[in-house]
Amino acid sequence: MARRAPSPHLDPSHTATPVVAQPLPRKPPTRVRVEHLGPAVDGGAVPVAASLGETLTLSADILRDGHDALRAVLRWKGPGDHSWSEAPMTHVDAASAGVRWAAPLTVDRLGSWRWTVHAWAEPLASWREEVRRKAEAGQDDLESELAEGAALLEAAAKRAKSAKGDKAARDADRKILTDAAAHLADRAAPAADRVATALASDVVATADRHPDRSRPGAPADEGRLRVDPVLARFGSWYELFPRSWGGLQGVRQRLPALAELGFDVLYLPPIHPIGRTNRKGRNNTLTAGPDDPGSPWAIGDASGGHTAVHPDLGTVDDLEALVVDARALGIEVALDFAIQCSADHPWLTEHPEWFFHRPDGTLKYAENPPKKYQDIYNVDFDCEDWQGLWQALLEVVAFWIDHGVRVFRVDNTHTKQLAFWQWLIDSVHETHPEVVLLAEAFTYRAMMQELAKVGFGQSYTYFTWKSSKAELTEYVSELASTDERLYFRPNFFVNTPDILTEELQTGGPATFAKRLILAATLAPSYGVYSGFEHFEHVAVRAGSEEYLDSEKYEAKERALDGPLLPLIADLNRIRRANPALQQLADTTFLETENDALIAYAKRAGANIVLVVVNLDPHQVQEGVAVVPAALGLPPSFEVVDELTGEQFGWQVGRNYVRLSPGQRPAHVLRVVGA
Amino acid sequence: MARRAPSPHLDPSHTATPVVAQPLPRKPPTRVRVEHLGPAVDGGAVPVAASLGETLTLSADILRDGHDALRAVLRWKGPGDHSWSEAPMTHVDAASAGVRWAAPLTVDRLGSWRWTVHAWAEPLASWREEVRRKAEAGQDDLESELAEGAALLEAAAKRAKSAKGDKAARDADRKILTDAAAHLADRAAPAADRVATALASDVVATADRHPDRSRPGAPADEGRLRVDPVLARFGSWYELFPRSWGGLQGVRQRLPALAELGFDVLYLPPIHPIGRTNRKGRNNTLTAGPDDPGSPWAIGDASGGHTAVHPDLGTVDDLEALVVDARALGIEVALDFAIQCSADHPWLTEHPEWFFHRPDGTLKYAENPPKKYQDIYNVDFDCEDWQGLWQALLEVVAFWIDHGVRVFRVDNTHTKQLAFWQWLIDSVHETHPEVVLLAEAFTYRAMMQELAKVGFGQSYTYFTWKSSKAELTEYVSELASTDERLYFRPNFFVNTPDILTEELQTGGPATFAKRLILAATLAPSYGVYSGFEHFEHVAVRAGSEEYLDSEKYEAKERALDGPLLPLIADLNRIRRANPALQQLADTTFLETENDALIAYAKRAGANIVLVVVNLDPHQVQEGVAVVPAALGLPPSFEVVDELTGEQFGWQVGRNYVRLSPGQRPAHVLRVVGA
Repeated sequence: MARRAPSPHLDPSHTATPVVAQPLPRKPPTRVRVEHLGPAVDGGAVPVAASLGETLTLSADILRDGHDALRAVLRWKGPGDHSWSEAPMTHVDAASAGVRWAAPLTVDRLGSWRWTVHAWAEPLASWREEVRRKAEAGQDDLESELAEGAALLEAAAKRAKSAKGDKAARDADRKILTDAAAHLADRAAPAADRVATALASDVVATADRHPDRSRPGAPADEGRLRVDPVLARFGSWYELFPRSWGGLQGVRQRLPALAELGFDVLYLPPIHPIGRTNRKGRNNTLTAGPDDPGSPWAIGDASGGHTAVHPDLGTVDDLEALVVDARALGIEVALDFAIQCSADHPWLTEHPEWFFHRPDGTLKYAENPPKKYQDIYNVDFDCEDWQGLWQALLEVVAFWIDHGVRVFRVDNTHTKQLAFWQWLIDSVHETHPEVVLLAEAFTYRAMMQELAKVGFGQSYTYFTWKSSKAELTEYVSELASTDERLYFRPNFFVNTPDILTEELQTGGPATFAKRLILAATLAPSYGVYSGFEHFEHVAVRAGSEEYLDSEKYEAKERALDGPLLPLIADLNRIRRANPALQQLADTTFLETENDALIAYAKRAGANIVLVVVNLDPHQVQEGVAVVPAALGLPPSFEVVDELTGEQFGWQVGRNYVRLSPGQRPAHVLRVVGA
Repeated sequence: MARRAPSPHLDPSHTATPVVAQPLPRKPPTRVRVEHLGPAVDGGAVPVAASLGETLTLSADILRDGHDALRAVLRWKGPGDHSWSEAPMTHVDAASAGVRWAAPLTVDRLGSWRWTVHAWAEPLASWREEVRRKAEAGQDDLESELAEGAALLEAAAKRAKSAKGDKAARDADRKILTDAAAHLADRAAPAADRVATALASDVVATADRHPDRSRPGAPADEGRLRVDPVLARFGSWYELFPRSWGGLQGVRQRLPALAELGFDVLYLPPIHPIGRTNRKGRNNTLTAGPDDPGSPWAIGDASGGHTAVHPDLGTVDDLEALVVDARALGIEVALDFAIQCSADHPWLTEHPEWFFHRPDGTLKYAENPPKKYQDIYNVDFDCEDWQGLWQALLEVVAFWIDHGVRVFRVDNTHTKQLAFWQWLIDSVHETHPEVVLLAEAFTYRAMMQELAKVGFGQSYTYFTWKSSKAELTEYVSELASTDERLYFRPNFFVNTPDILTEELQTGGPATFAKRLILAATLAPSYGVYSGFEHFEHVAVRAGSEEYLDSEKYEAKERALDGPLLPLIADLNRIRRANPALQQLADTTFLETENDALIAYAKRAGANIVLVVVNLDPHQVQEGVAVVPAALGLPPSFEVVDELTGEQFGWQVGRNYVRLSPGQRPAHVLRVVGA
């Protein structure tokens, strides 16, 4: 730009610097902006976790300067699709002058989906709107406008001609549009008549079939979805140590009973050979007796490591047979994937470079001071041959997938490299999107979220330590919040071989029953570690959450005959019958006017379930369940208690509730005919 | 991977597909993740708008698998910086097991800033923590650990040696570290003593000066800041039509009085030649009389366009003189930038290709049916020569910047292309970051937000139409919310030449006073269009917001003698004295138990202002102002009414308030000694 000399008036410091034009774009930039695709996690960097068959509402903000009419389509590619599919979007908050457009998408295949939004200004639609407003305002001098409309209709007719599809239909469309154009341009006809023609609905509909996308908006960034099997969201887990059930063959014999109880997943702690060196004795003592079997998490001995089966449990073929029989009964077998080795694992001699050595050459066993795991060595993700290590670990998972396993419970995930998990899970899901991985991680919340973001389909949670009404309400509300449930799926285990909470140690059978009901009705996935149904509750010592005579260090004689099993079977049946209990999204906590009573409503479509639980294992508790009007229920309605079959009349507002502690300290009420 | 033949047990559909390893990263991926930089707008795509001298708290989530100790630094580049500056970050929510780290940054230069976060695991710090926990747990066999620590200290000593800076200091550091390493490795000394040495604070501090960044986390995405002048955030605007004040020379004579009144910006509607063709007459009539001056927004005649000054107003030199004199008094002159042309603008003949022609060759004047602007033609941003058009428009702005103008009020921004604004503002700010652009846009919210995101420093708002306590509370709360105030700065004009609200037409002087007080105390920037101080309130007809005998179509005789000016002067004085009124962030609405009383607290650092306004222009209103404990005030405290000088005793909780309508229907209370 030419500059004149600075004026004598002006402070030179304000004029010395000329304005310099930034480089101009080469092509005319789009006038339509498509932004804020949703749902999205971390702005689209992390895929949203969906489950098979789900219908998602995908949406975006669409803006353009000025007043032109906009059109938008949702475009998507499912797994393996080579071309984009397309469906029109609706301007969902036009009424509130918002800019959100949306369309539904049903995800009917497992794996990775991409989606985006294309939007454009539609000149013909804009013109129609302008002419409509002018005609309504009584303007009669519309010759210029009509000429403009005729030109737009001619262009639409040209697009009709070159459109794909049935030639006869194209020719018909073209004729409608050229006729309308001729009529608009016909000065012999009165303007009002011609305007009416321009606005006629058949012309409008025909033109809409042939939009002008010559100046589309820039395609939006892409949204990503990861479609997992329903099991990633909804399932009942049972955990058992095969060595206490007669090995893999013995477990196989229990499958019909487990299916009868309604379990979906049977999770086995590691089934591999166990190291001898530094083997732990009963109750985690440092020296094992000759008959002590050791901890299954001390993986590997001279006979094999992560791809071997402990000879006392059976063979790889036995595992396969178990998987196949289980699947036939609707149960998936989950193996434990624990990245650690006993001192006798073949990798320590074959790949000593994968383990961390101190300057004095000693190996470092696993520890989290003051806790020590003298029977376990961790691999070193910072080692030189990290690529070989990653590859070997993937091969372990691939080996068991080859042998039919589709679910993995992954041990201590938060102490391994996130980039490694991402790579491993991506590799698995590329050809096996049906595989579900449950992350074991009891650590700070952000790390648990991160593990979900790199691809774990489920996660253990803090549920075992959430006891009071306030704690449960806050925790579940957070998990059910929009942000979190887009990628994080909780699995509410009521106990684990590591976690016998103080509440279970001291609360008696009523506590076991209430914790079971809470887990099974609050979370779509929940789990039970065998022994819970027998009210096992004795800790190794005061202040510890470890079981006395823990099954981690010895074999037991187990049988499926615990007194809590009928309640478990009922809960699993109720969960399968009520879609409301199969998801987390629509959970509303209800006022009870008593801190010992917790109440919540869950809904999926027409299915509404109201749950009230007595949190006090010792006393009868009375209160109310206040059904809010926002639930949309009629002023009074019938509910049936799915646990007892009893029917009650309930209402919006306060409903009196009285619950005894004991084996079934809860109402699980399905709204009838809602 | 080698695959075995599928087992006869397994469903072949589950085994046919092998797991395929995804490509391995070439370099070992980082184990430290830095995410969610904040504050950020649209995930960092849009710069956060800051103002000069502000101290921002910049933060990020930092995660790593495992339990290693982390370190992090904030890194930034101010405008023109060639290298990164760096400061340590603090783990701000370590106490709640969160992952947020933060550091303050004071932005002391105008323009674009970039910032990022580097984080790494510090092996020596991790080692110290591990040894501390072991020593505390009574472990005495620490020889291996001590050897490891010695090696780490040796490495730190090496880094000290090669560090930049003062050689003597480096040598001293190195000696401390090598001595400590030797001590750790000395098997003659008892382990406990050696542990104590390793944990000694001087060794710790020395080692911390020489961190191991050999395996840093991936640098985070960059955060962006746009540092604008304080005037973009905080200022009092006065709008006048120079033709009603004796032209630019006449305006210049009023500068001392305007400065006395405390105005920061003097905004002039377009000062350019006005078209003759289709000139509007008084009260927007279609035919102008011979003496009708026309609308200043019908820009351009044969004598010149956007870079010319209307001969009745003066010359470019007069404008410069006005700018210079104003600046000397602390006032910036804002010009109107209106991208539109009268039929007589030179561009219509020089560049007919910049305007939209219908198929019949006619030009299309501006309209928003049924509204018509027959005296105005809009440029066509979709024209072939859009690049020439963009360039020409930038040259207009550059011309006035050359002549000293630093503030622009930009007309009707929402009907022009967003990409164009982005380019124009980026171009201006590249060499003139001190320029502030106020967007005029009364349209849907998302578009107003978008205009702020492309670089407008301020925006007009819906304030004029927010009358009730509920409307004001909701609207200001939204503007003050974290999301919005990071990039959107409101300017609360009480009226404009286009907007005489029904409330002002009917409410009488008390309404003018209350609206002034609300604007001046709710928003850091507010504005008055001349005439308001005279209680001008007659509309052209019932149901219209247009003034009768609007100054848009005729010249007036104006003088600075309105009865509201003393209140304006007081409010401007109070605003300058109270930082709480210069920002939007910390605004809390208070319960008043009376819908005719609105109360709010604003705070900036130690400065707290409590405002109570009677919204009823007709009646005395009584109520309370409930000061919440969350404000952190002592149980009882003194306030001084900045409008009257009166002093009151107030308290946390309910404070009785009684306000008459009239010239000063409000308390503006500064908390004394807070």
